[in-house]
Amino acid sequence: MPQPSDNLCVVLVATRNPLNLGAAARAMSNFGVWQLRVVNPYELAFREARSAVGAAALLAGAEEYKSVADAVADCTLVVGTTAVRHRELQHPLRRLEYGARLIRKQLVGGGRVALLFGSEKVGLSNQDLSHCDWLMHIPTREKHISMNLGQAVAVCLYELVREPRTVRQPETPKRATAGETERITAVLLEALRASGYVKPSAAASTAEKLRRLVRRLNLQATDAEVLLGMLRQIVWKLGL
Amino acid sequence: MPQPSDNLCVVLVATRNPLNLGAAARAMSNFGVWQLRVVNPYELAFREARSAVGAAALLAGAEEYKSVADAVADCTLVVGTTAVRHRELQHPLRRLEYGARLIRKQLVGGGRVALLFGSEKVGLSNQDLSHCDWLMHIPTREKHISMNLGQAVAVCLYELVREPRTVRQPETPKRATAGETERITAVLLEALRASGYVKPSAAASTAEKLRRLVRRLNLQATDAEVLLGMLRQIVWKLGL
Repeated sequence: MPQPSDNLCVVLVATRNPLNLGAAARAMSNFGVWQLRVVNPYELAFREARSAVGAAALLAGAEEYKSVADAVADCTLVVGTTAVRHRELQHPLRRLEYGARLIRKQLVGGGRVALLFGSEKVGLSNQDLSHCDWLMHIPTREKHISMNLGQAVAVCLYELVREPRTVRQPETPKRATAGETERITAVLLEALRASGYVKPSAAASTAEKLRRLVRRLNLQATDAEVLLGMLRQIVWKLGL
Repeated sequence: MPQPSDNLCVVLVATRNPLNLGAAARAMSNFGVWQLRVVNPYELAFREARSAVGAAALLAGAEEYKSVADAVADCTLVVGTTAVRHRELQHPLRRLEYGARLIRKQLVGGGRVALLFGSEKVGLSNQDLSHCDWLMHIPTREKHISMNLGQAVAVCLYELVREPRTVRQPETPKRATAGETERITAVLLEALRASGYVKPSAAASTAEKLRRLVRRLNLQATDAEVLLGMLRQIVWKLGL
């Protein structure tokens, strides 16, 4: 079944480090994004990355371009990622979560979107940026905004591919019944009496406190059974 | 100003690759998470990572532990990250976005949270997992669930830190620390041994099961104290 993310292209511009190329490809594979385009990668980096494990097919299918213009020519939306230092921005700049919403909308509408990542050292050049419709940044701490390339790709794709609607709640385990918690309370009280923790005169008020405590444990059904078995054994031994 | 994320600890267990240690530290610095704890890192990896650029201060301040138990002893919530392969899970498993919500709630309420990441090759062991309250996974593609360690840390922290203006939640009761639950586990084991519930030969595997059970109780700090007192009394009486 075609997915909107089939029309998402990750465009790596002038990447230097083969590990980063490999890491970007791995994150793409993790999140089901298939189109990798590279613009002027350091030749050696590209060759080495191809031989890296994790996302070999994806890297083998990567398309190489001589210019950003060529790499994004068939895209209906071009978004540059930036850590925004002192550069004067001539583009709208959107936080990842808002930008991702716009990108998803474009993809769902059948458009093709290019997401650009610059080189490790200098990011995207002004020339590269001039091909972008707008810019996107990952909300990091003010004083350390520059992310590792592979990590930045992973975070962006995570946000882009997430579908809030599909958030599945974890299955809640079957809870113990009130009858079971009550039995545990009773046996525990017996153990505490037998061990001298509770004085007979205080048994009634202790029972109530115990019941509250046992209920706060929010016992699962299977755990309740195990606990009951343990306590019964302890009571039996105390009575010997 | 103290931030909730000040009480978030990233715990790296048996990390092998210095690049991953460095990448994890860099992502922490990017997202303003400061407490790095390492459990049995490969010595060389740890030394090399310390000399890596990007987050030197953070790595220099990393605390080294011999065991997961020690590393999480002061934490009120212990969450393991996993890619969930074929392992039989005995813990609730939550998707990152949902789990992050629970973690934030705990942090805002003043609790200390440990987020565990296993080694690159095998992830967290069953022994490691027995110290966890629940598990969390990043929603990746079914067929490629295993993420690079540094990227997984970055994605988790991005999601955890993403909502800076968290609305203050109603106060949740203070939870027991991992150290307290560990003490309860130990005393309960003693009681079970003394009462003949556990055979000495099975003590090790029972300890692990008990630890899981006690963690599932989700103990509040005050209840933990009361329970410990009860169990100690019982143990004392059983020993007479």
